Amino acid sequence: MTSVYLDRIAATPLLPEVREAMGPFLGEAFGNPQSLHAAGRLAQEAVEEAREDVAVLVGAQAAEIYFTASGTEANNFAIKGLALGHQAKGRHIVVSAIEHSSVLNSIKALERQGFTATLVPVDGSGRVDPADVEKALTKDTTLVSVMTANSEIGTIEPIAAIAAAAKPRGILVHTDAVAAAGSVPLDVQALGIDALSLAGDQFYGPKGGAALFVRKGVRILPLIDGGIQEGGRRGGTENVPAIVGLGRAARLAARDMEARRAALVPLRDRLLDELPRRIERVLVTGSRTDRLPHHASVCVEFVEGEAMLLSLDMQGIAASSGSACTSKALKASHVLLAMGLDHATAQGSLVFSLLDATTPAGIDRLLEVFPPIVDRLRRMSPLWTEHLKKRGS
Amino acid sequence: MTSVYLDRIAATPLLPEVREAMGPFLGEAFGNPQSLHAAGRLAQEAVEEAREDVAVLVGAQAAEIYFTASGTEANNFAIKGLALGHQAKGRHIVVSAIEHSSVLNSIKALERQGFTATLVPVDGSGRVDPADVEKALTKDTTLVSVMTANSEIGTIEPIAAIAAAAKPRGILVHTDAVAAAGSVPLDVQALGIDALSLAGDQFYGPKGGAALFVRKGVRILPLIDGGIQEGGRRGGTENVPAIVGLGRAARLAARDMEARRAALVPLRDRLLDELPRRIERVLVTGSRTDRLPHHASVCVEFVEGEAMLLSLDMQGIAASSGSACTSKALKASHVLLAMGLDHATAQGSLVFSLLDATTPAGIDRLLEVFPPIVDRLRRMSPLWTEHLKKRGS
Repeated sequence: MTSVYLDRIAATPLLPEVREAMGPFLGEAFGNPQSLHAAGRLAQEAVEEAREDVAVLVGAQAAEIYFTASGTEANNFAIKGLALGHQAKGRHIVVSAIEHSSVLNSIKALERQGFTATLVPVDGSGRVDPADVEKALTKDTTLVSVMTANSEIGTIEPIAAIAAAAKPRGILVHTDAVAAAGSVPLDVQALGIDALSLAGDQFYGPKGGAALFVRKGVRILPLIDGGIQEGGRRGGTENVPAIVGLGRAARLAARDMEARRAALVPLRDRLLDELPRRIERVLVTGSRTDRLPHHASVCVEFVEGEAMLLSLDMQGIAASSGSACTSKALKASHVLLAMGLDHATAQGSLVFSLLDATTPAGIDRLLEVFPPIVDRLRRMSPLWTEHLKKRGS
Repeated sequence: MTSVYLDRIAATPLLPEVREAMGPFLGEAFGNPQSLHAAGRLAQEAVEEAREDVAVLVGAQAAEIYFTASGTEANNFAIKGLALGHQAKGRHIVVSAIEHSSVLNSIKALERQGFTATLVPVDGSGRVDPADVEKALTKDTTLVSVMTANSEIGTIEPIAAIAAAAKPRGILVHTDAVAAAGSVPLDVQALGIDALSLAGDQFYGPKGGAALFVRKGVRILPLIDGGIQEGGRRGGTENVPAIVGLGRAARLAARDMEARRAALVPLRDRLLDELPRRIERVLVTGSRTDRLPHHASVCVEFVEGEAMLLSLDMQGIAASSGSACTSKALKASHVLLAMGLDHATAQGSLVFSLLDATTPAGIDRLLEVFPPIVDRLRRMSPLWTEHLKKRGS
């Protein structure tokens, strides 16, 4: 069984208050919010209360929040819906090279329809330079999308500056804040953005509860056509328990964000400091300064991430090699390659992402267990043997 | 409070066994199925077990089941994904005139991309004639989509005969079985179809748990692009509790279908017999013979559906005026208009849809309460006064 869970970026447990808030809607309060009777009204009121809570978390108005079933759906909705809704003005999109697969693959789908896209590079810490975004803009650009933070490397991007470069030209700005929302303060007004994706399962809300903020008055085409739900912009019966859970998780995240951060950062920094100290040829990936408070990531040279994960798992430690959406694809991460790492190094990628329940003892356990695992795996690697020989000579 | 719930088509409560099966995945078993550790494997095993249960319900193989977050998403995925995936062969789609808004609005989205569609009419009971489908096929037709049953009128369509008309020409056949799956026996092999949408919240599973069957080897483009989940055909973190709940609900539906049906049909028929007997100018809508076992629908002339629903609600009775996805749109139903009803009659549409927990006493209560409600509302209607005068003369 897992005793030390360090895979927050893949999934968080429900907070007890979140599960409690969802309870009635998995029980007697099973109504459909669109129904014209008491059971329907009860469900609708709960959905609207959650909408308000989510809006507050990101400084939006409730009417600007559209519920979706995942961060991936929110990203698809944003990229496709905004690009298609504004294609009369132009068909060029600017994104960073390290976006999530839901953004990059939405772009690919649009490219098959004749859109073009420019991928803006990142520096060695995974940071996008707003000047590079500005340079990529053309007269056909209608949309810029850069993530708030990257879940593989923890780096937080300069979204306000990126938006400032795009907005004067009337270009829409979306940010995939799935990895960041609930963990770092976000204000859509201060950021100057038009759309923002978030997902509750990244901050102790339920799977299936996510949302897209779309600024009032911005045209967006539905991704999921259907009934009159979500102002006609997203069809399908509202997933009331998931929405209620998302709302409650958002409310708690807004309330506790600073306290959570204060507790997480020392643990995170201990990992970032100690891992390279205790294990030879370990490289911290991502920014040390602009970084998610719960996120430590490294590349361990001469070992494959998967082998390390399986060994850690046998010791009861859960971690990941990057995005859950690609973890089993066993390809070198496009994020790490974009940062200039070579394929071999990128294969040794590991992410340790902390829950608020993570204890100093849990971190100690990882620091104790991990170096011998790396040692053992490296002894099986011909490349490591070769490296040792070279180093010895 | 609601004492008699007759709005199954809008929402069903979770069966206790379903809620129990979901429980661990809302608690300690919160892992992401894509994670390479114990918590991830536990989640993945549960998802695959659910996939098997859903497959069995419709006679499919597990690998042919793709989880979605709603019946609406499944319909969007099917219509857009199949049409776009086969557009090199042709860009014409055939659907019935009484499809759900998620199908019809998906068609509209495709029409904006240059597709064309033919809407096949229905008869007075809402039945599609397979010969009409056959007549509508052209050399450019790649997809036929007709619903298994309509949630507003309960009519079950002759899907096998419709598929038999399309298949010899190599045309794909999809059926929106959201209203039918879990309530009537379905076998994708016997029906001869390529795709089928279903939603657990129609048969005591959770909101957020739905699926699309796609026959092995049939090309379909993703609606939601993203990671490697669902074989790369549907991105987004799997909603494990909802999927587990759907699976359990499917298993129970397969086991209990015949017993449920046997108990529901007499109650349904009592409504269909008694409502026109006890209230003047009440018209049963839909088929009497090919009908969902839990479904009674009528049009009450000279009264608006919404007014009746609100009055019933005040008496603790929950019903609906049609599809939850359009109930608040307050437009005359396209389904009823397609059946040849006039606007005025269609405005008086009501659906009483029964849970398995519905009792004979609940039905009696409706039959007792409803006639005086109609009387009272009609007394306020100038059209009714006019009708009385005409009748009297």
